[in-house]
Amino acid sequence: MNDMVQATRADPFAAFGMPELGLREFWYPVLPAWRLRRRPRQVRVLGEELVLFRDGARVFALDDRCPHRGARLSLGACRFKATISCPYHGWTFDGTGACVAAIMEGPDSNIPGRAKVKSYPALQRNGLIWVYIGERAAPAFEDDVPDLVADRQRFFTITAITDYACNWRVLADNWTNEHHGPYVHANSPELLLQPVPPFNMELSVIDHGDGRGMGVRGTGGQNYAEFPGLGRFPSHSWHRFLKPHGRGVRGRWHETRAFKEFGVQTPTSSRLPGMVIVARPSAEYFLIQWAMPIDAHNTRLFNINCFRRMGRWREWRDRAHYALFRGWAHDRIFSDQDKIIVESVTPGPEHLSRTDVGLIGWRRFVGRHAGMEKQ
Amino acid sequence: MNDMVQATRADPFAAFGMPELGLREFWYPVLPAWRLRRRPRQVRVLGEELVLFRDGARVFALDDRCPHRGARLSLGACRFKATISCPYHGWTFDGTGACVAAIMEGPDSNIPGRAKVKSYPALQRNGLIWVYIGERAAPAFEDDVPDLVADRQRFFTITAITDYACNWRVLADNWTNEHHGPYVHANSPELLLQPVPPFNMELSVIDHGDGRGMGVRGTGGQNYAEFPGLGRFPSHSWHRFLKPHGRGVRGRWHETRAFKEFGVQTPTSSRLPGMVIVARPSAEYFLIQWAMPIDAHNTRLFNINCFRRMGRWREWRDRAHYALFRGWAHDRIFSDQDKIIVESVTPGPEHLSRTDVGLIGWRRFVGRHAGMEKQ
Amino acid sequence: MNDMVQATRADPFAAFGMPELGLREFWYPVLPAWRLRRRPRQVRVLGEELVLFRDGARVFALDDRCPHRGARLSLGACRFKATISCPYHGWTFDGTGACVAAIMEGPDSNIPGRAKVKSYPALQRNGLIWVYIGERAAPAFEDDVPDLVADRQRFFTITAITDYACNWRVLADNWTNEHHGPYVHANSPELLLQPVPPFNMELSVIDHGDGRGMGVRGTGGQNYAEFPGLGRFPSHSWHRFLKPHGRGVRGRWHETRAFKEFGVQTPTSSRLPGMVIVARPSAEYFLIQWAMPIDAHNTRLFNINCFRRMGRWREWRDRAHYALFRGWAHDRIFSDQDKIIVESVTPGPEHLSRTDVGLIGWRRFVGRHAGMEKQ
Repeated sequence: MNDMVQATRADPFAAFGMPELGLREFWYPVLPAWRLRRRPRQVRVLGEELVLFRDGARVFALDDRCPHRGARLSLGACRFKATISCPYHGWTFDGTGACVAAIMEGPDSNIPGRAKVKSYPALQRNGLIWVYIGERAAPAFEDDVPDLVADRQRFFTITAITDYACNWRVLADNWTNEHHGPYVHANSPELLLQPVPPFNMELSVIDHGDGRGMGVRGTGGQNYAEFPGLGRFPSHSWHRFLKPHGRGVRGRWHETRAFKEFGVQTPTSSRLPGMVIVARPSAEYFLIQWAMPIDAHNTRLFNINCFRRMGRWREWRDRAHYALFRGWAHDRIFSDQDKIIVESVTPGPEHLSRTDVGLIGWRRFVGRHAGMEKQ
Repeated sequence: MNDMVQATRADPFAAFGMPELGLREFWYPVLPAWRLRRRPRQVRVLGEELVLFRDGARVFALDDRCPHRGARLSLGACRFKATISCPYHGWTFDGTGACVAAIMEGPDSNIPGRAKVKSYPALQRNGLIWVYIGERAAPAFEDDVPDLVADRQRFFTITAITDYACNWRVLADNWTNEHHGPYVHANSPELLLQPVPPFNMELSVIDHGDGRGMGVRGTGGQNYAEFPGLGRFPSHSWHRFLKPHGRGVRGRWHETRAFKEFGVQTPTSSRLPGMVIVARPSAEYFLIQWAMPIDAHNTRLFNINCFRRMGRWREWRDRAHYALFRGWAHDRIFSDQDKIIVESVTPGPEHLSRTDVGLIGWRRFVGRHAGMEKQ
Repeated sequence: MNDMVQATRADPFAAFGMPELGLREFWYPVLPAWRLRRRPRQVRVLGEELVLFRDGARVFALDDRCPHRGARLSLGACRFKATISCPYHGWTFDGTGACVAAIMEGPDSNIPGRAKVKSYPALQRNGLIWVYIGERAAPAFEDDVPDLVADRQRFFTITAITDYACNWRVLADNWTNEHHGPYVHANSPELLLQPVPPFNMELSVIDHGDGRGMGVRGTGGQNYAEFPGLGRFPSHSWHRFLKPHGRGVRGRWHETRAFKEFGVQTPTSSRLPGMVIVARPSAEYFLIQWAMPIDAHNTRLFNINCFRRMGRWREWRDRAHYALFRGWAHDRIFSDQDKIIVESVTPGPEHLSRTDVGLIGWRRFVGRHAGMEKQ
């Protein structure tokens, strides 16, 4: 592929038509389920302030502003079953947002049936609270999210959550096989003892054909390079004595179980509304990284580790491995290496190159989607 | 009264003509007197920055910016009697704002008599510093503030002060008998053992006829209610075994001593420039809550407890009662229950109702006043 | 000179044509040299974000934003000699800003030679990092800065650095003999035991004729004054028993060694791009106070103490004197007296007077320069 020098305008995302506050008409994870207990709780999602409350396993989400006088519902209480009452005068709303009582006006008040607050479809699944953001009727949760999350018969998940001080588009850029991996993560615990993954690859975009995602295929590449007059990258490699494993493994994807049995088209898949799915060839483990826009300047990252259910002992081993190694080695250290850098990115003029082929493909993919009906 | 569903515009206060930075041409309390000592002190009042300084019991207030080069006078010192000198070059101003010396130019300077800084009428009374904000000649302090404060022969006061992170209009709304009381304060120490005060009352506005205030009369109402399919409010009442007392007492106001002897027209009175006076039928105690706008987003609340002088022993008892109970039970705990909620209010579209009759009356009252000459 | 009452417009600096972000086309000190080590470091200069890095004694300054995808170069590392590599994908730039490698694209990438980041002339001298801000070719450092800094054969320097929360123009105003000295610093350790310097002087501006600076001559004046009906300044003077020394000394400047041998035209000299040089008559010591605009609201003050080299023992004595007395007595206490006041200045309408003759001259001088070619 030829070199792709190009100068985009001041805001490269706007030029592609990517909405600053995220894509609407999707289900999003918003909070770990254990953080919503008996008291209501506020969350910010795509720039909107919501109040969450629960009745047992049922979860409800409303606009966090009482239509009466503007107090914050999340300061109120769940006084009656499956309702939330405003802290100011006790206007009480059910999960649909309908007012069912205006306590200070007594049972004969005519406010119930008239007052209403905006409601959001919400549910609890996989240890997370999910909310649908959009104006249309929400699709079934299982039809909208990846099978890895929806199919609880075959997969179980463990999720780590971190808030990033950057726009969601900067974070999603980071997932397009744009070659930061071998550089930023070269010394991460996961890759420390094996060769750095190949860089200088030929990249091509593979559209998944389902209107929801795409992947970036890399071929060729090299594990180290000598730069004349400068030096070698990576510089010190005596400790890289292990063979590639985990993330480092490469091979013919079309011969893997992930592809043949589970239909995963690419090792990493960038998907709407803003996530990446990283697959293992064995299809025994997948990592979903999901960017939930809090507002224009903050993003909540959900690292959803998806393990295939392979019996009680294997599940026990997977959980132990996550607790003892993967939890800190990847979801903390590996991801935080990205965090420092993406939080420093100042969007502006860019000098994109042949290693940014996937990134350009992703931005175009999102831009196309943002301007059309969801499929 | 019929239901009053109404949708005001985005800023409900602007729709009524209430000024964001407060009403001008009034005396306001601004600071506890003990916090102004030998050093000048800055205060923000109605969005303006003032410097206060004193000469014994005389108090002065000037614009806190030297007209020479713009340094803050409040960083200066009271170098000569009843004056303040700028910290930068010693331009010295008396309490009228007239420059009386430009120290660095020597005694022969012609700056005195030419330079001037804006001054504000100011005085110390009832342990507070008061400032008049306006462009016209200030009325006598005693003619402008409630008798409870002005008449020191009959009343003594104890004041508690708290800064609120909200506009003054949101705080003043809270004082219009709009039925938050039985809900927000149901479990406050003051009301814990007695029935919650009645809600679902019929409300009507009583104009005091003096161009300064109004009250809201409530009749009927109920102390608890059963909401079909939901439950009861208040929920747990076994501990409410006492008869109503203090705030909870109700009766025929026109037969009270407060009305007959002191001419107090309503149990609670909302008055300009933004205060409420809560009366006891016995007229032995009154509470003034006075909102002083600091700026558009902050308000200083003065809880001025006014006790009728009834002899030395009774005064001793009143002070002890305030120190041991009322000070924390009302001015801290009771008021802080309001503070949390009013600070959460986001002004915007409202769905007002029949319990907001007093609130609407108050906003109209202020709006009328803001557009006319003061009476 | 007559009284100069004048009312300038709201922003007095704009009225004179003084640029808010400082004068361009000059060398500026930006950082103590010891704070730049092996890791790159960000500095803000005249509102721009630069990354500094070094190769031994050579220092480089680039725009702190990678042209590739906008990451902050100062988070990167100096991976190869005399270069800096972006933390994201390893795009590597030399001191001229030319890309010399795009590590993740391998040695055959065609990005080197195409990508470029803006560079700034930079060097290390007198224990400081210096950067040239401008669009034209940088003049030789020695030709642009005072001889006191450039001529290291005859002078050595010790520098103290403090950041001020004010615009650079407010700080530079403070250096124009506008008579704050005898007032603000009357009780500083340096002046405590001697009479306060004279105030109420006749001032006249002396243009240095080199297009770079001017001074303000003061004649006459008085050391104390009695203000009728107010009192005396300074008030308590029993402790001022010493004769004037140090800063306090006055005399015929044209007979001093500083003038005759070193050509210093005025005891204090305000010079472009924003500094004051305070001279001793003996020419054995000079103080440069240099204002480096960080951004519109912050300024870094470099107090560069310049000592004439007069043999090893004298140098030892000078360093000891600085460490034991002058370092804290002037560069901390004396300067901090100014800091508190200039940070409080709110630019706006001014009432300038005859003691502001030098200040007006300085503002005009800068305004003239800002609109013309540098000489």
